[in-house]
Amino acid sequence: MTMDDFLAVPDFGLGWLDASGPHADIVLSTRVRLARNLQGHRYLSRASDSDRQTVFRAVARAVDQASLPDDPVLLPLAELRRRTQRILLERRLVSDEIIGRSEPESGAGVAVCPRETLSVMINEEDHLRLQCLMSGLRLVDGWSRVDGLDEELGRHLPLAYHHDFGFLTSCPTNVGTGLRASALLHLPGLVLTKEIDRALNGIAQVGLTTRGLYGEGSKFVGNFFQVSNQTTLGQSEEDLIDHLDRIVATVISKEREARRVLMRDAGAVTEDQVWRAYGLLRYARALTYEELMNLLSGVRLGVSLKVLPSPPVYSLNRMMIFSQTAHLEDAAGCPLSSSERRAHRAEYVRRALRDESAHGTSDPGP
Amino acid sequence: MTMDDFLAVPDFGLGWLDASGPHADIVLSTRVRLARNLQGHRYLSRASDSDRQTVFRAVARAVDQASLPDDPVLLPLAELRRRTQRILLERRLVSDEIIGRSEPESGAGVAVCPRETLSVMINEEDHLRLQCLMSGLRLVDGWSRVDGLDEELGRHLPLAYHHDFGFLTSCPTNVGTGLRASALLHLPGLVLTKEIDRALNGIAQVGLTTRGLYGEGSKFVGNFFQVSNQTTLGQSEEDLIDHLDRIVATVISKEREARRVLMRDAGAVTEDQVWRAYGLLRYARALTYEELMNLLSGVRLGVSLKVLPSPPVYSLNRMMIFSQTAHLEDAAGCPLSSSERRAHRAEYVRRALRDESAHGTSDPGP
Repeated sequence: MTMDDFLAVPDFGLGWLDASGPHADIVLSTRVRLARNLQGHRYLSRASDSDRQTVFRAVARAVDQASLPDDPVLLPLAELRRRTQRILLERRLVSDEIIGRSEPESGAGVAVCPRETLSVMINEEDHLRLQCLMSGLRLVDGWSRVDGLDEELGRHLPLAYHHDFGFLTSCPTNVGTGLRASALLHLPGLVLTKEIDRALNGIAQVGLTTRGLYGEGSKFVGNFFQVSNQTTLGQSEEDLIDHLDRIVATVISKEREARRVLMRDAGAVTEDQVWRAYGLLRYARALTYEELMNLLSGVRLGVSLKVLPSPPVYSLNRMMIFSQTAHLEDAAGCPLSSSERRAHRAEYVRRALRDESAHGTSDPGP
Repeated sequence: MTMDDFLAVPDFGLGWLDASGPHADIVLSTRVRLARNLQGHRYLSRASDSDRQTVFRAVARAVDQASLPDDPVLLPLAELRRRTQRILLERRLVSDEIIGRSEPESGAGVAVCPRETLSVMINEEDHLRLQCLMSGLRLVDGWSRVDGLDEELGRHLPLAYHHDFGFLTSCPTNVGTGLRASALLHLPGLVLTKEIDRALNGIAQVGLTTRGLYGEGSKFVGNFFQVSNQTTLGQSEEDLIDHLDRIVATVISKEREARRVLMRDAGAVTEDQVWRAYGLLRYARALTYEELMNLLSGVRLGVSLKVLPSPPVYSLNRMMIFSQTAHLEDAAGCPLSSSERRAHRAEYVRRALRDESAHGTSDPGP
């Protein structure tokens, strides 16, 4: 399988969608990534075209030789259509930055284990970015998987390491462990009970960062908050992961408490709101992505509170991903204007919800 | 059948609901009423309790003796429960005013032909108020029916008539013909294309009045406008009716034109709006009457434009009537707080729409 064909694999690179992890009704996904560079090769900010190609080939060979839990698919970005690159972006398998430099000389690429939620970006900010993306709150497990991947690749590649600083990275903020771990949390309870600012302040005070759905600088859409570590130096990976894990667990219990308070003090209003969100998704003829995310947030809350009998979290996760622009254009087989996107998005969601309510016992009747 | 039992008759006094009249997608109903008083009896503003009782008995006897198209049910208001009185009000068979004076001494009552849409209020502002309420735009027909009722009752009752002024009434604004005719119009097209003010000004300039759904002083809720004659003197009944009929026909054609423009210039937005209204009605858990009317307005427009395959106009009309407070309390069998009303209203509408989409081929799928 080469080039764009991998898109035919259902949920390619989207193993986390299945909502199988702990607290999956609140924690959409856990992400652990390691920044690594090759010894004896210039950092990418100073690398020539031929340096980049050399790095790409070295990594590709290592990925091929390494013993990995799943056969990885190697995707040189320059050989993919623009829309396919954006599909990978929408699936969080590549970054905005690497897509912006996907000309043939860049040596940019990604290797993806289709089912195992592991991937490696090549020639992004660092020579390698190892990533594990899993359902629910599974920081320790995610760390152990990406650590295994790191060890396996390290057996075939000489990684740049300094005995005082640790792993060397292109940007000093990543030096040391090269580790960035995050959990993507859905916190409508804290938002609706107006406790969210206090919670975010608490997170900032213990040295963690909160971002929107799409990383740095992105807005808090759909009540999603991505909590991650800020420091990478001076602590072991295990300590960094453990710290983040404990804080996220606290936020989850605050969110659960907020939801209890919400149902106790404003149960009828909340029920009305989540059913209205469902009704709009079920019948609207045009949806912006932002409105969709906000309505899905209401439905996700409703399902978690058992106010809505369906759809399952897997379907909600899937709607988030497949109603993004590149996914919609891929399904349509052509570029879409912004009004066409809104119409296709609404149609996609409508069909998904109708199929959901038609199958089995999950029709959310009155 | 006496007292409150008449409520068991389906759609009692609601013959106009069936949407069988001309232009029923725009004209909810036509109403023609005549104010009449008995010779030799004091006007009600000066009448004693015993005068009122005498008038009530005289009218009751005449109604009983008259040859009418349908057996009338005579309802002395004082013998009805308060909720039943309000149900009659919500069905537009009695007025706010008569309900406010329904103590036993008032002699207030109403006689209703259950199927024939004719009714007679007794001891409201005048001794008699004859009313015909029909589906669609049927002013000429409505006038002829109420005229027939007037003639028939006039054979059994001496009506106050002056050869210069015509019929004498309690309030001078009704003197002459005693005729008030109106059409209740649904004008979302003119509202959405912002042509409504011009249309209302045009109506005012030709001597007609526009009011909200519930008569004088009521708000324009749900894009409903009631257009009626202002003068009752100096023109024959036929001329008054003909004038109103022609103006309403003009407004209807302007509304149809506005709907064409709307679909031509903003078809996608309009479709989205009417489906969203449907979605909210289908799933909301709490609805104020005002919001309900506004959402029903969207759905009514959608059905008229064939954007929505269902529900039929009859069902929309029925939802308007049966989701009012007294109707909801009657169905619940107990008084309802305002939050309970909102919840019961939403549930009533939800069930009605679900039944509608379950029966036959009218499921508005995506």
